[in-house]
Amino acid sequence: MSLKTSYRTNVCGELNKDFIKKEVTLCGWVHSIRSHGKITFLDLRDRYGLVQIILNPKNLKDIPEIKLEYILKIKGLVKERLKGTENKELPTGEIEIEAREIETISKPQEQIPIEIDDRKEASENLRLKYRFLDLRRPKMQYHLSFRQKVINSAREYFTNNNFLEVETPLLVKPTPEGARDYVVPSRINPGKFFALPQSPQLYKQILMISGCDKYFQVARCLRDEDLRADRQPEHTQFDLEMSFVTKEDIMDFVEGLYKHIFKKVLNIDLKPFPRLTYEESMKKYKTDKPDLRKNKEDPNEFAFCWVTDFPLFSYNKDEKKWEPEHHMFTSPKKEHIKYLESDPGKVLGDLFDVVLNGTELGSGSIRINNPELQEKVMKVIGMKKEEAYKKFGFLLNAYKYGSPFHGGMGLGVDRLVALMLGFNDIREVIAFPRNKSAENPMDDSPSEIDQKQLKELKIKLDLNK
Amino acid sequence: MSLKTSYRTNVCGELNKDFIKKEVTLCGWVHSIRSHGKITFLDLRDRYGLVQIILNPKNLKDIPEIKLEYILKIKGLVKERLKGTENKELPTGEIEIEAREIETISKPQEQIPIEIDDRKEASENLRLKYRFLDLRRPKMQYHLSFRQKVINSAREYFTNNNFLEVETPLLVKPTPEGARDYVVPSRINPGKFFALPQSPQLYKQILMISGCDKYFQVARCLRDEDLRADRQPEHTQFDLEMSFVTKEDIMDFVEGLYKHIFKKVLNIDLKPFPRLTYEESMKKYKTDKPDLRKNKEDPNEFAFCWVTDFPLFSYNKDEKKWEPEHHMFTSPKKEHIKYLESDPGKVLGDLFDVVLNGTELGSGSIRINNPELQEKVMKVIGMKKEEAYKKFGFLLNAYKYGSPFHGGMGLGVDRLVALMLGFNDIREVIAFPRNKSAENPMDDSPSEIDQKQLKELKIKLDLNK
Repeated sequence: MSLKTSYRTNVCGELNKDFIKKEVTLCGWVHSIRSHGKITFLDLRDRYGLVQIILNPKNLKDIPEIKLEYILKIKGLVKERLKGTENKELPTGEIEIEAREIETISKPQEQIPIEIDDRKEASENLRLKYRFLDLRRPKMQYHLSFRQKVINSAREYFTNNNFLEVETPLLVKPTPEGARDYVVPSRINPGKFFALPQSPQLYKQILMISGCDKYFQVARCLRDEDLRADRQPEHTQFDLEMSFVTKEDIMDFVEGLYKHIFKKVLNIDLKPFPRLTYEESMKKYKTDKPDLRKNKEDPNEFAFCWVTDFPLFSYNKDEKKWEPEHHMFTSPKKEHIKYLESDPGKVLGDLFDVVLNGTELGSGSIRINNPELQEKVMKVIGMKKEEAYKKFGFLLNAYKYGSPFHGGMGLGVDRLVALMLGFNDIREVIAFPRNKSAENPMDDSPSEIDQKQLKELKIKLDLNK
Repeated sequence: MSLKTSYRTNVCGELNKDFIKKEVTLCGWVHSIRSHGKITFLDLRDRYGLVQIILNPKNLKDIPEIKLEYILKIKGLVKERLKGTENKELPTGEIEIEAREIETISKPQEQIPIEIDDRKEASENLRLKYRFLDLRRPKMQYHLSFRQKVINSAREYFTNNNFLEVETPLLVKPTPEGARDYVVPSRINPGKFFALPQSPQLYKQILMISGCDKYFQVARCLRDEDLRADRQPEHTQFDLEMSFVTKEDIMDFVEGLYKHIFKKVLNIDLKPFPRLTYEESMKKYKTDKPDLRKNKEDPNEFAFCWVTDFPLFSYNKDEKKWEPEHHMFTSPKKEHIKYLESDPGKVLGDLFDVVLNGTELGSGSIRINNPELQEKVMKVIGMKKEEAYKKFGFLLNAYKYGSPFHGGMGLGVDRLVALMLGFNDIREVIAFPRNKSAENPMDDSPSEIDQKQLKELKIKLDLNK
């Protein structure tokens, strides 16, 4: 594959000894400048790497002003570096370019406020405000391309296993009392709103009722919640649903998915994931997210495990009622259905979490496909039929036309990529993240909108309450 | 790859003569029923195809009630069909399954309101309302999997050409007077709003300033406009941007992309795309979207072309001012810069559209990377600096730190997939589309939200104006 364009013959990072004596034209950013008498050494940077350029007045008619981050087009000759001057840390370190022509493509008009240097990280706020500069750092470019590799290897595994990738809507039905739904006023239908999906949950269950058999999506999910370091208003998940499966089928598949990703991206062979019940995990580790690493300092140790058989309900003492632990479509374990009415606290669900190094990566369940069982569960949580229909009407309606056994998971992508790279903060692996107030200091969103637009949408601000 | 699960050994569509004498267990939907005396023939359907099942009371203890769309688990023996009874139209048509055990997984509680039959299409409204049934039709399943193939082959081409796939935000900055922006009130920042992206335009230009060199995304774009048959509030585009390129570099790449997709998905070798200027196209075809097919009845004829060199500005007679044809970051052709002040109507832009069979699939341009030229263009359209900064501040700000030459395109995916399948209506290739009032009759969105939620968001409805 060629990276040639009308302005360049090659890219910086691809050059090596094979190119010696060739004339090349490169375009890139001035990454560093060192002067030795009349001769100047530059490192020219593009996404593909750095290469050393020699500016020797002997070979150049005019040398324009050159400063850090100037964007230059340089024509020159690839030469072998003198013995002892090679740079073994650089893939291009055995060669250098003797510049013959230099053209300035663009130069900064303002002082660069943060250093484009992986060894010197700016403050969090500066990094977010000047994200377009922070992303110039080779480390951040690596994070983006690493993220792409993880997602591509996952997609390959899903596709090889006959999963259908379906784009579910971003404008969906708001759920009444849907705390944490972002909503979108409809101009064409005044007084009505769309919601942004917290996950494609209802739509993927619909797809199983449609006979899609195996669905996945690299899905964007949006949740209006107070932020923490590992939360963003938007996150990405590998969203999957399978028909005619048991919990073990899903767990086996997902374990294979992670094994494939780690082998492809890090060349690491993951061992079989230990499987613990919720009860075992709480007894042995006092947590339902056990960290099973032997050496927590080893950045290459990835200890996955499964935690299964969570209680189906939890008791809300304030409201004096049972609530679903996951959501009301989760199936109880078959052998516990008999306790539904007499002892809801005893009922375990067909629920399972996948945990990596003490962090929950995703959670899944087998769904109820039987309307009578669904009504029993609704009774336990004190949900009336009308209320259920108001909330989930279209899914309950779809179930009336028959449904296969099905279940699935949502697997966090941001956290997975961050952990694979050794970060706790998912913002290291997101191109344009937000701060803890859900603001983006780069584009300054959220921001005010015109009165005219509010009028068109038939809404008013109501700030004084 | 195995499609086995805990409930089935095989899927319907994969069975053929190789399986003769094997015992299989299948799960699927009853697609059709034919009785011949005591023997009943079923077609059992799953996503992978149909297979004929024979119910002979001789081989079965109990035959449960069976009607169309019942979901059954059937254990049986694969047998060769008798000579003369083969069905050559079915991949499984040389065999049939002699049922030995039948279990009912699920049965419809209501009359199925639309037929699951590709030969009998329901009305548009019924198809949208009962989309979960409409999607059961083999034809619709084919459309979804065809769409996936198109997207995967495109992604393969982008990835092979070193494009970085970056997820840009779904919550972005609203543009003042941003007609057609969907907006999202921020609960954490009362009185402020996010917008949903009409396209990742500003963010992909930012990524070029960040040195990403080649970016793409299978991007979801949202636009609040009055709908037509080929428009939806949400659409998907192959969004791309490249650095250090001319218009020809982009056109060559995109032409290669379409050639790759058509070869991979339809095994069609596309011919080189004719390239016309806007002037030539208008003169010769009286349109800027010429349909160059020789035979418009031939479903396998795909006539692509490029139309280039559109005027940079159009004159708004009502407001008596020049407006950008594309957007204000589009670069004028170099040789026309000199007319910017004296004769804006004469200035052609570095603009190009790709057209298939008379339909515009996408549009692209080389962007301005030079702040002085940008100011000149802003002057022509009468945009003051403050206004420009209010609208596009973060991009103009980023340009201050230097920018490579760059340009890109947005290529409609829904329309491409529809045209490849011979449809005009993009709703044939979207899982959950909306009607012309932006409503989804299946989930009944948009819909009202609670007063409580409006209060939390600090907005009020204002319906009486």
